Amino acid sequence: MKLPRGYRYSAVYAGIRKVSKDDLALIVPDLPAAGAAVFTQNRVQAAPVRIARWNLTKSRGRVSAVLINAGNANCATRTGDRVALACCEAVANELHVPSTQVFPASTGVIGVELDGHLIANAVPELVRGLGPKRFEDAARAILTTDLVMKTAHRQVRLKSGSIQIAGMTKGSGMIHPNMATTLGFVMMDAALPPAVLAAMLAAAVKRSYNRISVDGDTSTNDTMLVLANGAAGIQPNQKESKKLEEALTEVMEDLARQIVRDGEGARKLVTIDVSGAANEDTATRIARSIANSPLVKTAIAGSDPNWGRIISAAGNSGVALDPSKVDIDLQGVPVCRSGLAADFSEGELQKKLNEPECAIRFAIQGNAKGSARFWTCDLTEKYIEINASYRT
Amino acid sequence: MKLPRGYRYSAVYAGIRKVSKDDLALIVPDLPAAGAAVFTQNRVQAAPVRIARWNLTKSRGRVSAVLINAGNANCATRTGDRVALACCEAVANELHVPSTQVFPASTGVIGVELDGHLIANAVPELVRGLGPKRFEDAARAILTTDLVMKTAHRQVRLKSGSIQIAGMTKGSGMIHPNMATTLGFVMMDAALPPAVLAAMLAAAVKRSYNRISVDGDTSTNDTMLVLANGAAGIQPNQKESKKLEEALTEVMEDLARQIVRDGEGARKLVTIDVSGAANEDTATRIARSIANSPLVKTAIAGSDPNWGRIISAAGNSGVALDPSKVDIDLQGVPVCRSGLAADFSEGELQKKLNEPECAIRFAIQGNAKGSARFWTCDLTEKYIEINASYRT
Repeated sequence: MKLPRGYRYSAVYAGIRKVSKDDLALIVPDLPAAGAAVFTQNRVQAAPVRIARWNLTKSRGRVSAVLINAGNANCATRTGDRVALACCEAVANELHVPSTQVFPASTGVIGVELDGHLIANAVPELVRGLGPKRFEDAARAILTTDLVMKTAHRQVRLKSGSIQIAGMTKGSGMIHPNMATTLGFVMMDAALPPAVLAAMLAAAVKRSYNRISVDGDTSTNDTMLVLANGAAGIQPNQKESKKLEEALTEVMEDLARQIVRDGEGARKLVTIDVSGAANEDTATRIARSIANSPLVKTAIAGSDPNWGRIISAAGNSGVALDPSKVDIDLQGVPVCRSGLAADFSEGELQKKLNEPECAIRFAIQGNAKGSARFWTCDLTEKYIEINASYRT
Repeated sequence: MKLPRGYRYSAVYAGIRKVSKDDLALIVPDLPAAGAAVFTQNRVQAAPVRIARWNLTKSRGRVSAVLINAGNANCATRTGDRVALACCEAVANELHVPSTQVFPASTGVIGVELDGHLIANAVPELVRGLGPKRFEDAARAILTTDLVMKTAHRQVRLKSGSIQIAGMTKGSGMIHPNMATTLGFVMMDAALPPAVLAAMLAAAVKRSYNRISVDGDTSTNDTMLVLANGAAGIQPNQKESKKLEEALTEVMEDLARQIVRDGEGARKLVTIDVSGAANEDTATRIARSIANSPLVKTAIAGSDPNWGRIISAAGNSGVALDPSKVDIDLQGVPVCRSGLAADFSEGELQKKLNEPECAIRFAIQGNAKGSARFWTCDLTEKYIEINASYRT
């Protein structure tokens, strides 16, 4: 992976998690970068979400460091704001940057006090460890119940040179982002004003992180941050910015799909394509309703071509829908035509549904052009096992 | 159980289910009864829902027979309306009543043609079997994946005598009614005009069936019917009707709780009490969001006093909420005060959470009086097991 120029990364074990595995990560642009972020829509927001939003406003979208801890969400805690601020201070002192340019993020259990001393004590070692090649160390340190590291990369060729975009993210339960996501950090080396970056991020998040669901729960800590540090020495023009936005969307879509593929207990990645809806928003609502139906998700876990549950879930989306105009394909096999069972071999389709990827096509007949793609995963016994014993 | 006067019941095995267990039930008032019903809000509606609604309109709220089959939802089927109509005809001919006074209902798999001949052939035996004491036979015939029969009864003493109310219902997946429910049938022997009965039903359903959730999926076949045949010879006045409405609500709440207790894979009945919200609707939205959170439901399955998931789920309800004003009790034990962890013994509380009933109290501080009670169940591996193999 070719990384964006002008960033250094680090990770250490600060003792926040019980198991000895890195739980503290740092991302530092060589010079203050433009930063844009979206946050959870949950009314209950963690302290680091509040402080990150506040710092980004105070610094007018300038970011000199990103400090991420796993193992504790620092949410619904007595000392939340104070601890988050102290951690930013510790990083700021060590790096000699304003503390409002430090962007904090946390993930882990809710309602347990986060010991700020653990982080403050680890910061010197964290800073000493900074290096341009430690991207994956940082990417691994931010994981919680994730089974695999999640990173993505794109290169964008412009007239005056190439821009590199690289991102890291974590899942893998409480996943149902709405205008934001679980933790995600994307670095690029183009030079962009924070406002342009924010618009780019808003467009990209709409078609990536806001199109995935593992369990329909939106976390209290969801944070997606994009940095642009200008280290490539390229200021993209409007047309080039569009190209950059497409690449950013691709990177974020890639990361979002990795979250779903590694959803808690997931064995299958499910791609839902809805077409023929009145508009993109309507199509998304239908797709989301299918993606969130536990009955659809368990049917897919059991390789059961039970399309009745799919049409029923779509009927629950709140979108006006004429079932007699609905065609459904599973793995490319027509299972429903005009709202009725199509003629297909259940045995053969079951075999196809055993594959690690599942495609649901939900097409509404007619001339309407609204479409949306959405990703989810199957719902297995393993999800229950993980979540019935998360803390104990 | 003292049954309402003037009703007969019957059940047979018509061969719709694969296993030899009664799958066809009939309820017949001695004289046409006033009937009121609410139906699923799913945009995809089964044929019997369409025909039942149509018949109830045509007959101006008069019902002479209720025909219910389990094993096939008659939804998204080519021959749906024709089969539902033919089944009503068969019953009407045998009972010598207008076919618009026959109320059909179906439950079972979606998207598989229902063989109307199976039902038509079984109707003569079904009618021969009618008897006033076969209430429980009918109640058992309408079950699908339910493990236990679900019935409830209340007696209302009025000046001029007593009114009996008895109901039967079935669960137990795809449960998240909205203005209606899975199949439910309540009989009473008061004399009431259909319009009064409809208003009573609307009030009762709001606080019973619309306050439960097993998995957040609303079925295509949800139907709740109340009959009043006047066999007690009592025409309640307005004040007495209020008393009757309360008893009807109690019966329906009782049935609704039985559905949740027997939810697919459920081991625990969870009662959620929200108080201090702006109004009842707001309180219900918060309660529903908690009830539908898979993370809350799995935590309860694992007896994990993870109140952070409860406050997070409430934060996702869309209701404006100040977390620092929230108190949460689990099994009567304060776990969260003013949005922060209370001082409690996790070990002791875990033991209390092993009980078959779980109480969540979610109280918002302040003077607002909006409150709501909601019921759900825990989410266990068994739910997945049942639904990953429903058809196969």
